[in-house]
Amino acid sequence: MRWLKPLPLRPRDKVQIVASAGPFDVPAFEKGLEVVGQRYTPTYRPDLYDAWRYLAGSDARRAEELSGALSDTSSRAIFCARGGYGSMRLLPSLSLKDLAPSALVGFSDMTSLHAVLQAAGRVSIHGPVVTHLGIQPPAVQDYLFRLLESPEPPPPLRGTSFYVPGVVEGPLLGGNLSVFSRLLGTPYLPPLDGAILLLEDVGEKPYRLDRMWTHLRLAGVFERVRGIVLGQFTDCENKDGPYSSADVLRSLAEETGLPCAAGFPIGHDTPNYPVALGTHVRLDAGAALITFLEGAVQA
Amino acid sequence: MRWLKPLPLRPRDKVQIVASAGPFDVPAFEKGLEVVGQRYTPTYRPDLYDAWRYLAGSDARRAEELSGALSDTSSRAIFCARGGYGSMRLLPSLSLKDLAPSALVGFSDMTSLHAVLQAAGRVSIHGPVVTHLGIQPPAVQDYLFRLLESPEPPPPLRGTSFYVPGVVEGPLLGGNLSVFSRLLGTPYLPPLDGAILLLEDVGEKPYRLDRMWTHLRLAGVFERVRGIVLGQFTDCENKDGPYSSADVLRSLAEETGLPCAAGFPIGHDTPNYPVALGTHVRLDAGAALITFLEGAVQA
Repeated sequence: MRWLKPLPLRPRDKVQIVASAGPFDVPAFEKGLEVVGQRYTPTYRPDLYDAWRYLAGSDARRAEELSGALSDTSSRAIFCARGGYGSMRLLPSLSLKDLAPSALVGFSDMTSLHAVLQAAGRVSIHGPVVTHLGIQPPAVQDYLFRLLESPEPPPPLRGTSFYVPGVVEGPLLGGNLSVFSRLLGTPYLPPLDGAILLLEDVGEKPYRLDRMWTHLRLAGVFERVRGIVLGQFTDCENKDGPYSSADVLRSLAEETGLPCAAGFPIGHDTPNYPVALGTHVRLDAGAALITFLEGAVQA
Repeated sequence: MRWLKPLPLRPRDKVQIVASAGPFDVPAFEKGLEVVGQRYTPTYRPDLYDAWRYLAGSDARRAEELSGALSDTSSRAIFCARGGYGSMRLLPSLSLKDLAPSALVGFSDMTSLHAVLQAAGRVSIHGPVVTHLGIQPPAVQDYLFRLLESPEPPPPLRGTSFYVPGVVEGPLLGGNLSVFSRLLGTPYLPPLDGAILLLEDVGEKPYRLDRMWTHLRLAGVFERVRGIVLGQFTDCENKDGPYSSADVLRSLAEETGLPCAAGFPIGHDTPNYPVALGTHVRLDAGAALITFLEGAVQA
């Protein structure tokens, strides 16, 4: 399939900030907003600060905000305020008819939004949410700006280890394992055939990682994808057990037989490098290397 | 569809004990085994005590043990040692061709085994695992023996509250929300059309309950079932939030519009009453009452 890329950003372009998931820590948000504001012109609705239980306001508010941002042709990107939980509640109410050619930037809970865009053939950016952006090193912030502005492939990223060697190419898809696996059996799973699957997570014990991964297996995902890229698995250890989450992920990867490398600087840790979902990459699992074969935005 | 019921048990009948999920606490297991042994003649393989990470031995061991028990026509029931995690790992390797007419008894992680049996049109028993049986009051133990031995409908069960009123009838299906939702998009989801959906869980914060429930919603489950029975949601509170898991479940139930009652004595608490999945029940949600329209075993 042909993937439609967002238009490139230029400094001072208008960008939208949305809160489609949980309520957020205001100082962390403002710190990230300052980083966005140094490069672009951020705008947001005042009710972005709403909070209801574990959500940044009602479903209606968040859906209206997000739908508005997705169709706003006067802005060039949508930055998500924070993750948490809640975006998947909005999926049935999003209109995907009048999508502006904007870059959506977010990760974790936003995996469900990325999936919706990918099902519509859109490239989107798995990268820091606003509350995460302020604590990222300048190298990550600069990498993000470059990714959003240049049609050239970004520099390659290195992981720390390989579980199954092999070299494969395909569009990079996926994101947060918890969220991605919650799309199985729904109309919102992205087109996975031939893809390289990116997975990361936070706060999930090893047996829970196994359960989510086994769900992917029983749903046939590993018969469809060509390779697996593992990012950070932060706070995923079982304090009582003599095994690590890496031990468990290695076993799971070996079961699939697919080329798989781990320890990429992508996820809930620092640094969290942005990557363009839907763009073609080459995974050399034995070298724990992802080479980007194209840029994230239109030339 | 026609559901095949297990043959009734008689005192002293041979029953199998299997450990298809996690390793277990031996004293708790022995206490439950004594309860089983007072009524029936339990047998098990010595390698039932195996442990590997969070599993009761290798997949091969557990699958062999379980497949053997499922096809053993010399025993009348299969009691699961404990839950935890691991049964869903075995689903693709189970042979369902030579199923003996035995009653499978378990809950929590065994929800995936129940689902496989239900997909094959078999009634099975959502009830205490062996490590849970020893701490159940005599009334629950007696209710289980009666359910396994008599073709008559068991006495009704009462919940504590209703979320959406209404009276509906259908086969009772479901079980543990975490495990059941992990079957979406796989070939192992039971035939849900017209069913009354039973859900319970343990150790899941309210936003996680929302995420799992929303997964069911996005997968179309609430368009297929007729009503919802909520059992215990044990240790599911968010200590920081001014809302309870019951508040969240009520909101979720109201969104579906389906008759729904809560607080049934089914799940990870005490008492944990057994119910026969696949048998027809009447849910009077406004009265928080389940009436069983048939027994669990063949006449």
